[in-house]
This record gives sequence, structure tokens and C-alpha cells, in this order.
Amino acid sequence: MNGKMVENAVGRRVPTQINGEEVIPFKGLGKHLPKGNRYGPPIYSSTQYPPDGNKVVGSLEEALKKCGLSHGMTISTHHHMRDGDLVSNEIFKVASKLGVKDLVWFPSASFPCHEPITEYLEDGTIDHIEGSMNGPLGRFVSEGKMKGTGVLRSHGGRYQAIQDGEVKIDIAVIAAPTSDPFGNANGVYGPSACGGLGYALADHTYADRVIVVTDNLIEFPCFPMHIVGNYVDCVVEVDRIGIPEKIVSGTTRITRSPDRLLIAELTARFCEEAGIIHDGFTFQTGAGGTSLAIGNFFHKIMKKNGIKAKFASGGSTQFIVEMLEEGCVDYILDAQTFDLESVKSIRRNPGHKVTSIFNCYDYHSKGNFTTMIDVVILGATEIDVGFNGNVVTHSDGYMLHGIGGWQNTLFGKNVIIPVPLFRDRIPVIRDRVTTLCGPGELVDVIVTERGIAVNPRRTDLLDKVKGSDLPIRSIEELKDEAEKICGKPREPELDDDIVAAVKWVDGTVIDVVKKVGI
Amino acid sequence: MNGKMVENAVGRRVPTQINGEEVIPFKGLGKHLPKGNRYGPPIYSSTQYPPDGNKVVGSLEEALKKCGLSHGMTISTHHHMRDGDLVSNEIFKVASKLGVKDLVWFPSASFPCHEPITEYLEDGTIDHIEGSMNGPLGRFVSEGKMKGTGVLRSHGGRYQAIQDGEVKIDIAVIAAPTSDPFGNANGVYGPSACGGLGYALADHTYADRVIVVTDNLIEFPCFPMHIVGNYVDCVVEVDRIGIPEKIVSGTTRITRSPDRLLIAELTARFCEEAGIIHDGFTFQTGAGGTSLAIGNFFHKIMKKNGIKAKFASGGSTQFIVEMLEEGCVDYILDAQTFDLESVKSIRRNPGHKVTSIFNCYDYHSKGNFTTMIDVVILGATEIDVGFNGNVVTHSDGYMLHGIGGWQNTLFGKNVIIPVPLFRDRIPVIRDRVTTLCGPGELVDVIVTERGIAVNPRRTDLLDKVKGSDLPIRSIEELKDEAEKICGKPREPELDDDIVAAVKWVDGTVIDVVKKVGI
Repeated sequence: MNGKMVENAVGRRVPTQINGEEVIPFKGLGKHLPKGNRYGPPIYSSTQYPPDGNKVVGSLEEALKKCGLSHGMTISTHHHMRDGDLVSNEIFKVASKLGVKDLVWFPSASFPCHEPITEYLEDGTIDHIEGSMNGPLGRFVSEGKMKGTGVLRSHGGRYQAIQDGEVKIDIAVIAAPTSDPFGNANGVYGPSACGGLGYALADHTYADRVIVVTDNLIEFPCFPMHIVGNYVDCVVEVDRIGIPEKIVSGTTRITRSPDRLLIAELTARFCEEAGIIHDGFTFQTGAGGTSLAIGNFFHKIMKKNGIKAKFASGGSTQFIVEMLEEGCVDYILDAQTFDLESVKSIRRNPGHKVTSIFNCYDYHSKGNFTTMIDVVILGATEIDVGFNGNVVTHSDGYMLHGIGGWQNTLFGKNVIIPVPLFRDRIPVIRDRVTTLCGPGELVDVIVTERGIAVNPRRTDLLDKVKGSDLPIRSIEELKDEAEKICGKPREPELDDDIVAAVKWVDGTVIDVVKKVGI
Repeated sequence: MNGKMVENAVGRRVPTQINGEEVIPFKGLGKHLPKGNRYGPPIYSSTQYPPDGNKVVGSLEEALKKCGLSHGMTISTHHHMRDGDLVSNEIFKVASKLGVKDLVWFPSASFPCHEPITEYLEDGTIDHIEGSMNGPLGRFVSEGKMKGTGVLRSHGGRYQAIQDGEVKIDIAVIAAPTSDPFGNANGVYGPSACGGLGYALADHTYADRVIVVTDNLIEFPCFPMHIVGNYVDCVVEVDRIGIPEKIVSGTTRITRSPDRLLIAELTARFCEEAGIIHDGFTFQTGAGGTSLAIGNFFHKIMKKNGIKAKFASGGSTQFIVEMLEEGCVDYILDAQTFDLESVKSIRRNPGHKVTSIFNCYDYHSKGNFTTMIDVVILGATEIDVGFNGNVVTHSDGYMLHGIGGWQNTLFGKNVIIPVPLFRDRIPVIRDRVTTLCGPGELVDVIVTERGIAVNPRRTDLLDKVKGSDLPIRSIEELKDEAEKICGKPREPELDDDIVAAVKWVDGTVIDVVKKVGI
């Protein structure tokens, strides 16, 4: 099924076929140049659509039938509803009821709320998932229970795959907090407001058929037009597309852990000492508890030194909005809106701009925004002594996280990964990551509570912090210290069966996830 | 060269090949359904572009060379600079200097300022033009002096042709009033501000290579991002891209001619009597002198009756802006910004929305905005007794105008063409139009200073104005009256040589323009 296995440029054995399709093993950074042309979806005529612009149909089932739902199709969804999504599961409930089999679910991410999908994986409605599998679905897949092989991509990689025709979406189902009957839609208004809808841009541009599902149908014309009705086939009105408190969830709280706060402080101090925080600098800090703390430290440093940032990118939170409104940041380039304050900010702040994955992350475009970001703060489940990072599996081999924008933002000018030296007495820094999601050449600094390791390739950074009182150490020293405390970690027990492939931003295969031995 | 000649569904003899490419004769309204997939331009990698996002090169010549300018390429430009365009001629000046031959110029429209292009048509730099040829270029082509055959398309037809891959743009050159070094650009700010840049949307999305030329280079990020830098190869900074007073020109003055004012008043009264002007109605009136007068009459009727329009679409002018600011119109859906007041309005009025040709006019999209417009006011050089319209040639056969959005807006709910019964003693209503640009089935009402003819197909409209004191007459009566005054018009003296083809909105050939006998 998976062709032959070959060793790729980062020494991982990967298949040459996935789900019966040829794939290219990772060739090394910047080594794979794309050939051919972007994908073009089928052409339709406006005569096939209602002249009054009213594309509303009675139900999701009717819409799916109208769009020709049938065996083997690829159905895409976005994750702007996050853990409050009430639409994705419904699609497969309908499909299962209709007896449609072997679908591919192609979400931009999945959440614990998607656990019911396991039922449709079990009854044959869904063959496999291509996309992040956070939590329960990841566990299910890790245990080898999914029929086909999963494919994990970064946000930018997902755009690339759609654009380049590696994944052809038959039906895109777009949950939209506000829509008009023509299908012009946005995420900024309505009871299920989620902010931007940038993850759905590729879907609605390149899918054969597009269904907008909304719980806030307004009169034409709907502005802003994040989703352009000219691409939309049907609009479905439902009671609720999401659970508001889970859409803009409470995950965005600053850490209170003393260790994490220390890591955050060390990260910010490193950036200050290394001259990364300068007037007009640009940053992407993320929305985890430690990341938020780092953002806060940045904010303090900026105020102290009278420094203004050009833009903050990635996910937006109330903390970034505060910086914008205080004039510390000129723009928020928002690819994902994490809390209600940020949703409101989009409505009121002209400097709070909704951007798309194409703008920020597409590796197969004529440049993108990430390479212009001065400092990117990322997480990881594991880092190895070659600075390679893992974000999808835990050290026991279970795949519990998606890649998100992680691979894409590795192209920032300074990539810093603040991590605890160990979690639950399992070292984070190790000889070899369980799954290699990004090559160490792109990771510049690892910050732990017990020291900071700078990638030896970054002699410029090492020079800049030389003489500072920062606890600069080698990555090997950090690893040794972790092992001294926790003991040498055991290798996970894994089968040979591949349950998922991890794609690099250029569409090549950088690693695989294997079935856990149970 | 042009294959064999066949008669199409509107009785015009058209070729089956143009410039060596197969074409499809017009099959009748809604009869041609597209097959296949949209075009996808070549894929590039972000590694091929500067990581600092700075794509600025020293000159247009350098940019064209970098983009591989060579023989036979198709070079596109937009016409948002209108008669003040300082960029288009420069491209071919460079090409001519470099000895590049047989280019195709693919502008969204041309203006008198493009007369120097004749030099490059003569020296072989340009083989032919695909696009509107207003004024001098049209005259040149009409006299058979262009090597290849011209192809005329509506604004929407141009988008369709690009999207469907009928025209593959090798290099799009986009004059942009404001741009950042990454190529994000807009038309709203800068010394050459022109409003929206909607005509360039298809170009920058589907072209192989894209060059942005600006006289207002600002720091990244440039907002609004009408042009998305991820599609852009190079940015060129020049002193001036346009002559401001000719970009937002003085063409937008209300007519003072008593006859035209009468026509305008009759048109507005017809709309009122026929119940077209109702609360929440939508309209597109255009920017000619008579059209502006009609808009003014609409405005008065609306104020008198306390009526509010949902949107005004098409070109925006100070008069429409006034309606918006008075609260008579909820939205302006702006596809072209005709005067400085409108440019300023985009900056200050949230209800003044920049829309693209894709939104408004693309016939091969999943519906578009035109079918939702209650009343469309259009012009014509000739109308025949079958209500067929001509907008590109004069009655002497000279091709002096482009199609613009004319064909596209024929799909509005009520299409009204106000025209004088004769111009320079040449009847406008005739037995047969010199060039058939739009089928009479789509034209509902002809308003002249001596009477109003309603298309007999529109019995509903005829019923509504029955009993009013409007001068309703048959189109034959109007024709006869014109001929009584001016005499029976002579047929133009035309050669058999085809100088240009006129495409319908679906890409089929509806008519041809023949060489004038000189």
C-alpha cells in the first residue's frame, strides 16, 4: 500500500506512496522546487445558479446531496470554530445515514469535540483524515484504528497542497458566523463570531463545490467578504454553528507556573540582550500560557525602552490587542483570533488586519510573511540535540497534536523554542525526536528553566549574548542535565505500521508516525 | 488564418479560428456551458524570492528582463489610470528597444493616451491587442493596420478568459498608486490614487509573472491589500505612474443638453411608473453625462418618496457618493472609481466598498452580482429593431469604443438604454446594428427624446406603464421617425477582412469587426 520505504534527507525512513498516491521524500531545506501549474477547479456557469442570488437550501443534507456527495470524496472543513465546532460532525452523520463510504476528511485542524468522528471512521464512512488530529482522534489513529493513512500538514502546507492539486477538495463545508444568501461570508459578526476565516480561503477558492453553513443569515451584501459568494454553491441556515465559549476559548491565560514564568522571562531577556527587540521589530509569540507570558515581558521591555513593533502576527489575543491599542504595535496580522476581545478588536481597530494562510505561510507562493518576522516563539513536545523538533507525538509515540503553523514559522529570522527541561519526569531534550517535524537548521534557540541553548549555526546570536549573565549552555548539557534528573528516557514501543505521514511545507514527506504497540 | 466562417446563433458570420486558435461561435443565451477546469499558473517556491520581502528592482526594464520578457508573450495591464496612464506605453518602449517581437497586449481597456502604441504595432513589437480599443487605436485597427486580429471582451469576459485559460498572461504589469516592497498594493492612497484596483485581480491571480509599478512605495505592510504581494514577482518604483487629473478625469459632468436631459427625465419617470424604484432597490447608472442626469433624477424621486436603495454598483462618482452620505443608498459596490470625490469616499465611508470584476461580472462563476441589479442604465452607438445593441463601432464601421461592463450588465433585471434618436443626423435605431455586441433578448427598454420602446418580451413592463402619460411607442416607430428626419442610413463600406472579433461573456464569438473601406 505504501510503496517502498526510503531514507529521506533527515535520515527518516518514509514511504514513496501514501494511500496509493506517489509522494516525494523530503530532500533537504529548499531543495525541492515545484513543477507544473496550480490546480484549477472545474468551471461552472452563472446560468447554473439562481439569478436572484439566493443559494439557500433547506438543510445540510440537501446541500450535500446537491453538491453530489458520493463515495471516496474529499470533504474539507476549517477549524475557526475550534473546540466549539457544531458543523463538522454533522457532515459525516449525514454521510453515514446516506450510506456514503470511504470519504476523506480534510480539516484544517481537529479538536476534542470531534471525537464522534471515530464512529464514522469505524463504520467506513471515512477512510482517513488528512489534517491535524488533536486529542482523541490522534489517540484513535495512533492505535492503528483508521483504515487509511493520516496525512499531517502545517497550515501553510495545507494551503500548498490544495493550491498545487495534491489534495483536490470535492466539497468544502464552511461554517460561517455571518453570511448572506449569495454566500458572501465572514467570521467577525454574529452569535458564533470567531474573527477571521483565513483557514477557509484555499478551500473556497479551489474546491469543486462549496457549502456555507451559518447561524446568522443576513441580507446581501455581507461585508467584510472573507468568503466570496462567487465561489459558493449553497448556503445552509442552522440554529447554531458553534458553542461561543468554546470558539473563543479560555485557553488564552498567562501561565502561573513559576518554572514557566522563569522560561518566559529568560526568553524575553535573551531577545533583549541579542538585540532582537528593536524599534520596528516584528514578532509572533503564540497563544499558549508561556507564550502569553513572553508577550507580556516583550510588552514591558518595549515600554521601558520606548520601542514600537511594526507588527505582531499569527494568533491574536487580548494581550496583543492591548499592545495595539496602546500604540506599542502598528498592526496585528491576524491569522487566527483566539479570544472575544480580539474578535471585537477586528471590528473596531483599523490596525487589526485579518490575513490568510496564503499571505502568511504558503511556501509555494512568491514569498510569504514569515521570513519577515524577527522573532517567532514556538512550542515542541520534544527537541533533539540536532535542534530538530517534534510537535505531533508525545514521547510514548501517541499522536496528540497538530502541526499548526509550527513548520511555517520556522522560517522566521529568529526561532526560539521555550520548553521545560522535562514534563512529568520525561526529558524534552533527547538524542532523537520520536517524530521529526522540522529540521534543526531552522531552530535557533532553546530556552529551558535550567539554561538556554543556541544553535551553533547562529554564531551571530552567540556573539551577541556573550558576556551577558544569561545561562547559555550547549544543548548536550541540557540533555544531560535532564537525564541526570529523570534518567535516560525509554524509546517508545512502536509497530512498523505507519498510521500517518508528516509532510514538510513543500509537500515532501519528512517523517511518519507509527502505530503504538498496545 | 481564421479557419472557416460560420453563422452563429444571432445570424452573424464569424470565424472558427482567431489568431490561429480555435474559437466557438455564439450558441445563444445560456447555451454554452463551460467544460474543464480553471487555469492554474506555474507554481513557484518562496525560496526563489528574497526572504526580507524586498522585491524592488531598479527599473521597469530590469523587471521585464527578470520576468523573462520574450517574443510572443502576452503582457497585461489594467486601465485604472485611464487616460492618465504613464506605464503601459513604457512597457512596449522597453520591449521595442530590446528587439522583442510579436507580443500580445492585453489591457483591460485602452485610451487616447495609448496612441503611441501604434508605433509598436508598426515596428512588430506588438502583434495584436486583445482588449478595448478606444479612440486612436481603434481607428488604426479599423483601417487594417494591425498584424494580428484584435479580440474585444467585456470586463467580465476578460476575467472569464483569464480564469478559463483562454488567455494566458505571461507578464502582468500593474500600475499601483501605493505598494510596499513585497508587492502588496492598492489604489486608494498616493499621488496617483485611482480608487479600487479590481480590474487587475484576475491578472495578478492568474499571470505567470507579476510586476507592480508604483510612485508611492511605502513600508510593509500596505493596506488595503487590493493586490496581494504573494502573487508579485517584482516591484518597480518610478517618478509617476499617472497624471492625476486624467486618472480621475472630468468626464463625469451631468449633461446640459436639453435633449439629453429630456431622455434622462423620461428614463427616470419610466422607472418610477414601472415600479422599478422601490424601497431596497438596486441600480447601476453609469458615468456618462446622461447617466449622471438619470442618477440625479433617481435621487430626487427617492427623496420625494422616502425610498432608500440597497446598493449602487459599477462606476462611482461624486453624485453616488452624495447619495451614500445622505443615507439614500446603503452601499456603493465600486468596480471603478471615476472621480476624486469617490476615491476620498472609499477612504472615509465604510459603506463604499471596492469590489472586483469577479464579484460583479464573471459569467463563469457561481453567480455574480449583476443578476441582482434592479435597473441598469447603458449606452449604445446603435440599437436595431430586434433590440440588439452595438457599443464598439460607429455606423461608419470604425471601432472607437470598448465593451466595458456593457455585456455583463445586460443581465440586470431591467436593462434600459437611453439614446438620442440620432447623432449628427445619423439614426441610432436601425434595421441592423453594424456590430452586434449584445442580443436583443437582454435589452428591455430604449428611451429616446421622442419616445420609449419597450421590448415586446417584457409584457410585464408594458402592463405597468399602460395608462401612464409616458410616450410609449414601438421600436419600429422610433426607427421610422429617425429615418423620416435623417433619411435612410447608408450601410458602411466594409472590406471582408476581419480586424477584430467580439466575444460574448461566455467566451464564444458573437460578431466580428471588419476593416473599413478606405
